[in-house]
Amino acid sequence: MEKFKKLAIIGLGLIGSSIFHAARRKQLAIELSGYDSNPDVRIRAKAIGFASIIADDVTACVKDADLVILCAPVGAYKSIAQGIAPHLAPGAILSDVGSVKGAVIRDVGPFVPAGVHFIPAHPIAGTEFSGPEAGFASLFDGRWTILTPAPGSDPAAVERLKAFWQGLGSQVDVMDASHHDLVLAITSHLPHLIAYNIVGTAHDLEQVTEGEVIKYSASGFRDFTRIAASDPTMWRDVFLNNRDAVLDVLGRFNEDLKVLQQAVSEGNGELLFDTFTRTRAIRRAIVDIGQDTAAPNFGRNKS
Amino acid sequence: MEKFKKLAIIGLGLIGSSIFHAARRKQLAIELSGYDSNPDVRIRAKAIGFASIIADDVTACVKDADLVILCAPVGAYKSIAQGIAPHLAPGAILSDVGSVKGAVIRDVGPFVPAGVHFIPAHPIAGTEFSGPEAGFASLFDGRWTILTPAPGSDPAAVERLKAFWQGLGSQVDVMDASHHDLVLAITSHLPHLIAYNIVGTAHDLEQVTEGEVIKYSASGFRDFTRIAASDPTMWRDVFLNNRDAVLDVLGRFNEDLKVLQQAVSEGNGELLFDTFTRTRAIRRAIVDIGQDTAAPNFGRNKS
Repeated sequence: MEKFKKLAIIGLGLIGSSIFHAARRKQLAIELSGYDSNPDVRIRAKAIGFASIIADDVTACVKDADLVILCAPVGAYKSIAQGIAPHLAPGAILSDVGSVKGAVIRDVGPFVPAGVHFIPAHPIAGTEFSGPEAGFASLFDGRWTILTPAPGSDPAAVERLKAFWQGLGSQVDVMDASHHDLVLAITSHLPHLIAYNIVGTAHDLEQVTEGEVIKYSASGFRDFTRIAASDPTMWRDVFLNNRDAVLDVLGRFNEDLKVLQQAVSEGNGELLFDTFTRTRAIRRAIVDIGQDTAAPNFGRNKS
Repeated sequence: MEKFKKLAIIGLGLIGSSIFHAARRKQLAIELSGYDSNPDVRIRAKAIGFASIIADDVTACVKDADLVILCAPVGAYKSIAQGIAPHLAPGAILSDVGSVKGAVIRDVGPFVPAGVHFIPAHPIAGTEFSGPEAGFASLFDGRWTILTPAPGSDPAAVERLKAFWQGLGSQVDVMDASHHDLVLAITSHLPHLIAYNIVGTAHDLEQVTEGEVIKYSASGFRDFTRIAASDPTMWRDVFLNNRDAVLDVLGRFNEDLKVLQQAVSEGNGELLFDTFTRTRAIRRAIVDIGQDTAAPNFGRNKS
C-alpha cells in the first residue's frame, strides 16, 4: 500500500486512538494529525503521544491531509463536515468510523467538495471502554471493516482505503449503506439496546437489591453489563440515527419473545428445548471463523 | 472442615464433574462416587478419572454416602429422589445444584427420609460448555453459592455444607428459596431467555444472512451467543420450574423496553442518554467486587 502523507483523525476516543496506534505499527502514514473538540482529551492525547501532532483547531488538523477520518459520535458529524469542508485538500479521502451509514451520508455528503473522495466506513470492533487511553494497536486485528461507498465512487480511492484498513489489521467488505444499517441493527444496535434495558430493569427491581444483582451476576447478567457499559453519547447517536432499522428488528425481537413468553407461561418444554438447541450452531460458527474465543466464559476462568 | 467419608454425585456434567475436581484439589471427601443415567457419560467419566468410582446404578452410588448432591437437570430430580430415597444413609446430607429452588423443594422434599438433612444449594457458576469433559477445579473459585435450607434445618448440617462449598472455593450465602428464585430470575434466567431469543431473531431475519450475522458478530451479538450456547435441557427445565418469577421479571423487562422503543421512535435523545449512563455504575461494581474481569472485551483482545 502507498503510504498516506498525512492522516487526520477527528475525535480521539477508543477508535480514533486505536487507528493511530495501528497505523504507527505498520507505518501507514507519514504524519499523524489528531484533533478533538474536548481540550482535556487533546491534553491527554498529547501526553500519550500516539500522534505526531495534536492540533488545537480542526482546520489545522485536516490541512493537506490525504486521509481524513471522522471518529466522533455520529451526531456531531454534520457540524464537523460543515467546518472542515473548505479546508479539505483536493484528492483527499474523507472517511469515518460511525456505526450507522445512511445518516452519515445524509449529514456529511452535502458538504463534500468536488474532488474529495467521500467513502464512509465502519470497523466492527470495539471494547466497553472509551477515551484516548482506551485505544490499542491490535483492536482491528481479524475483525471486519465495512465500506459503503456511494455508486460512482472512484474505485482507486476505495481500493486505497481498503488497503489502509487491511494495513490496520482488518478484513474488509463493501456493501451499500442501507444494508449495512440493517445488518448492524441486528448484530449490534439491538443487542446494545437489550443489554442497556435489562441492566436498567435489574437496577429498578424493588424486590431484589442492587447488591444481590452485583454479587450473583456471574450467572449470566454480568455479560450484559459489559455491553451496557459502552459510551452513552455514541450509543444515543446510533439510536437517533438508525431509527427505522432498529425499530424493525426490535419488532421482530418482541414477536419472538412473545412466543417464548407464552411457552414459559404454558409450560411448553418442547418449544423451549427446540429454541435453545438451534442457537448453539451460531455460536459454534462464530468461534470457527475466529470472531470469538473458544475458551469457556470468554477465557475469564482459570482452568 | 471434617472430611466427608463418601461424596456421591448424580449427574456428571459441567457442575458435577467440577465439584469432583474441586473436592479432590482440597481433599474434601475420602471416597468420590459418581453416577449418570447416560451410559456414554459414565464411560467418559471413567476415562477422565475425576471420581474414585463411577457406579453403574444409582443406589450403589449413594449407598453409605454422607453427602449426596443432585447435579442432573432439575426436571429429573423427582424421579431420582424417589429412586434413591430408600438407600440414603441416616444422617446424610442431601443437596443439589439446581438453578431453581422452590421447585426442587416441591419435587424432592416429599421423598426425603427422616434423619436425612435436605439442604438445597445453587452455585452461581458455570460456562457455556456441558458434559463431563467441561468440568474443572477452579470453576467455583470466588463465585457465590446460595443455600436455601428449610426453616428448622439442622444448623450443624447447614454449617457443614457451607464449609464444603467454601472448600470448593466458593463464597456462601443463605436465603429462602422463593427469594433465591426471584434473584436468579433477574440475574440469570431472564438474561438467558433474552440471549436465546435474540440469537433466534437474528437467525430468522430474512433480509440479513446467517453468514453476515456471524461475520459481524463482534459488534455485540457474539456476547449473547455464548449464553445462548448453554445446555438446552438444563435451561428448558429452569423455565418450566421458575415460571412465575420469570414471567414477573420478563413483564418488567417488556415495560422498560417499551419506554426505550418509544424513545427511539420519537428521537428522545435525552432519555436514551440517561438510560445508557446509569448502567455503567453496575458494571463497575461487578468488576470491583471481583465477579468479572476489568480487561476490555473480557480480555479477548490482545492489548
